[in-house]
Amino acid sequence: MLIKIQRHLLRSFYNMANERGIASSSAAYNKILTLDNMNPHIKNVQYAVRGPIVVRAGQLRKEVEEGAKKPFTEVISANIGDAHAMGQNSVTFLRQVVALCAYPELLKSNDFPSDAKERAKRLLGGCGGGSIGAYSASQGIEIVRNDAAAYIEKRDGGIPANPNDIFLCTGASDGVVAMLKLLVAGEGKNRTGVMIPIPQYPLYSATLSELDAHQISYYLDEDNNWALSIDELERSYNEAKKTCNPKVLCVINPGNPTGQVLSRDNIEKVIRFAVSKGLFIMADEVYQDNVYADGCSFHSFKKVLFSLGEEFSSNVELASFHSISKGYMGECGFRGGYMEAVNLHPGVKEELRKLVSCRLCPPVTGQVALDIVVNPPSPGQPSYEKFIAEKTKNLTDLADKAKLTAEMFNKIPGIKCNAVQGAMYSFPRITIPPKAIEAAKDAGEAPDSFYAMQLLEETGICVVPGSGFGQLPGTHHFRMTILPPKAKMDSLFKLFHDFHTKFTERYGGECGDK
Amino acid sequence: MLIKIQRHLLRSFYNMANERGIASSSAAYNKILTLDNMNPHIKNVQYAVRGPIVVRAGQLRKEVEEGAKKPFTEVISANIGDAHAMGQNSVTFLRQVVALCAYPELLKSNDFPSDAKERAKRLLGGCGGGSIGAYSASQGIEIVRNDAAAYIEKRDGGIPANPNDIFLCTGASDGVVAMLKLLVAGEGKNRTGVMIPIPQYPLYSATLSELDAHQISYYLDEDNNWALSIDELERSYNEAKKTCNPKVLCVINPGNPTGQVLSRDNIEKVIRFAVSKGLFIMADEVYQDNVYADGCSFHSFKKVLFSLGEEFSSNVELASFHSISKGYMGECGFRGGYMEAVNLHPGVKEELRKLVSCRLCPPVTGQVALDIVVNPPSPGQPSYEKFIAEKTKNLTDLADKAKLTAEMFNKIPGIKCNAVQGAMYSFPRITIPPKAIEAAKDAGEAPDSFYAMQLLEETGICVVPGSGFGQLPGTHHFRMTILPPKAKMDSLFKLFHDFHTKFTERYGGECGDK
Repeated sequence: MLIKIQRHLLRSFYNMANERGIASSSAAYNKILTLDNMNPHIKNVQYAVRGPIVVRAGQLRKEVEEGAKKPFTEVISANIGDAHAMGQNSVTFLRQVVALCAYPELLKSNDFPSDAKERAKRLLGGCGGGSIGAYSASQGIEIVRNDAAAYIEKRDGGIPANPNDIFLCTGASDGVVAMLKLLVAGEGKNRTGVMIPIPQYPLYSATLSELDAHQISYYLDEDNNWALSIDELERSYNEAKKTCNPKVLCVINPGNPTGQVLSRDNIEKVIRFAVSKGLFIMADEVYQDNVYADGCSFHSFKKVLFSLGEEFSSNVELASFHSISKGYMGECGFRGGYMEAVNLHPGVKEELRKLVSCRLCPPVTGQVALDIVVNPPSPGQPSYEKFIAEKTKNLTDLADKAKLTAEMFNKIPGIKCNAVQGAMYSFPRITIPPKAIEAAKDAGEAPDSFYAMQLLEETGICVVPGSGFGQLPGTHHFRMTILPPKAKMDSLFKLFHDFHTKFTERYGGECGDK
Repeated sequence: MLIKIQRHLLRSFYNMANERGIASSSAAYNKILTLDNMNPHIKNVQYAVRGPIVVRAGQLRKEVEEGAKKPFTEVISANIGDAHAMGQNSVTFLRQVVALCAYPELLKSNDFPSDAKERAKRLLGGCGGGSIGAYSASQGIEIVRNDAAAYIEKRDGGIPANPNDIFLCTGASDGVVAMLKLLVAGEGKNRTGVMIPIPQYPLYSATLSELDAHQISYYLDEDNNWALSIDELERSYNEAKKTCNPKVLCVINPGNPTGQVLSRDNIEKVIRFAVSKGLFIMADEVYQDNVYADGCSFHSFKKVLFSLGEEFSSNVELASFHSISKGYMGECGFRGGYMEAVNLHPGVKEELRKLVSCRLCPPVTGQVALDIVVNPPSPGQPSYEKFIAEKTKNLTDLADKAKLTAEMFNKIPGIKCNAVQGAMYSFPRITIPPKAIEAAKDAGEAPDSFYAMQLLEETGICVVPGSGFGQLPGTHHFRMTILPPKAKMDSLFKLFHDFHTKFTERYGGECGDK
């Protein structure tokens, strides 16, 4: 109140001064937009994947480049699933088609294979004025949506996909946010509740904060390789029922940050649970190409849903998401992805179309790149062999590194890592000595942030604290990508081992046997 | 209530059926997400630029392509500022750099000028792993932000711009939405009010609906070539004060859909008004290169602000927006743009950084394209002459069409069009006969929507009804772009003339003299 009056007085003074042509002092001017009066829901948003530790990593990188003496020679950004930044090669055919579309003069060049040129011509034919500089339809270029539908059909063993159910987006994030925006409504106890896994990719918690929706946390079972248990879904649903209106169930499969791959049977149970409770299913399936572990394979929610009979396939509302940022292509910078929304109420689908039209269209180069992912070269085409070789190499490398990462972590006393069955991350559990927990508390930090910041300062390795994803209270983790180059893995884990040992000793902990 | 009970009963039945292994009938399944329970704020969103008339235009285009007999031979999409779709050529240098960045193998080719290659190398050097497939910093590639700052400095006659104040975005829309998200807060009478021009580009009203902010409409003065009057700002502010907390003033200059260009003096008065009321200024300046009329030139809000002395330049919070979708380049599909936010509270700037980081980064190809716009070839560089020739041609064409459009409309009795001083649109006023207004009412449509739909069906010309932008009650308009090719202008206006005459006669109106 005092502040308000003061501000009013100051402004009046300022106006008077202005009217009299006198420049009032700068101190008299209060900011209009402040931390106190800004949107509180935005203020509540947390997004650790690019949080303070990552900012500090950027500073350290600059310092190292400028010759500052550090206990390490380079900063290793293992915080984010950004394959190209860690040296993964792009897929030639994809990039050729993008270049041809960007500069169609190249269609005359002899340096491009005929199938890349044909693809570029076909895609340009689907663009307004034959240019990727034109807006596309808000839902995405029709040709690309058709190709995405064909891809889904093939992936799911022939279950039909309707191009009208497909919405291309600015990365999968964009689709997730759009769908949640539609779903969140109501006040007080009627406010929409959204069930999300814990640990989760923080886009979900951030979006729920922004929308002021009710986050319903269901915990994944770390002791069971991050399994998704139906009992835990029941528990969190029943508890949440008291305070909100649970309406959405989000599942990330393969898991981010947890790397588990759900079995077909597990997915069926999840679907039956969602149906029994009247929950809209959102399936984040951006890592569908990233399955490494023996005995695991990717099952789409849609395929499982459609295997349960017409009652399910004709009715159950499901939105699933895919992206070109992950998989074997790792084209994060293009911001391409799609959402397939089945069984949406026709009116709601129109509302979704309206909503996405306000932002005009997803980036067209991202749509072009997506087309290659959903419609890769076929056997016999000039680019086929090279495409397969590049895809296989990238996926094999990732599989090797997934295995290696868990193995190496498990060699460090005080660190315990589940198998990385899929996706691009390890999420090891760390033992933090009680004295370190106290020290973190004194510093006003979460214990795992405290740990991760010291790790960064002492080794140059940038990881994201587990608290940024959520974890069972009292447990501590971090997320590290499996993306660092194989050649650097040995030295990276040596640095990690030494750091963890020193950290433990520093705070009087015991490393224990391994 | 009845519905709720019914739904509950049906679900219980369905669960029972499920548990007993009996497939219940499809009719028993109610949608989880419906028009009744979806986010009401999203439902309130209106975005006519891609509304039902545009959807119908798409259908008609297909019908024509498939050989349906229509009173016209092609659909002319004059609804959206999409230059490439209407045949404008892309700028060679920009596309060459994008192609080189997408497929760096081309750096070896002799078909590209050396400055394009150097630029591509420089930009790739700013990308993680040297790849446009890596995420950039959430705020945008540092090199591009530096170039944008240098561009702004040069544009504004040397007034300094700080790269840290610049946020690259997914088209200017993305920046506008991000800034509004931060600004909107409070409940009831304390809810943030945002002043927007009427007519306005509907991104603003759509975003305010979505955020459930209070829209404060200030009317532009049609009789005075859509001038922005300070008295009207006062009037709308004072009226709004009773019901909300006015906190933001949005100005679109050059105007969309109205095409007026503000004078320096006018801008100064607007800034002084905003300061006197404590309003955060948002300046939509995406048409800064699109000024055609004699005696008009573009003055940035920042330049004017900084000319008012340190009291203003050091304190007044201003966000301004630019885009690569308009100007001479028209690269809408790339979704590139930037926001410059000066004098933000440092904590708020951090909150903005956090907010944009949740969506990871703007599309990198859009950032690359933006770099060419803010840092075009210099005199003496190999690509300079061609670049200038292409830029000049596109801008000269637009200037010719701007003039032609207003002239041609003013030849049609019953249509009155202000000079198109800038931007890409005409917004003519139409006389709609009372009987047509009644017929529209009977059909549940706005009179100008009723008019625009008939125009489309009878001529193939797709325009956006004025009601989609807002207009003084009792007046009727439409927005038509100035983008149709010059060669088609004559026939387009003949079609328009004939339609308007027939429409007026059909509903017993008088065309009047001209």
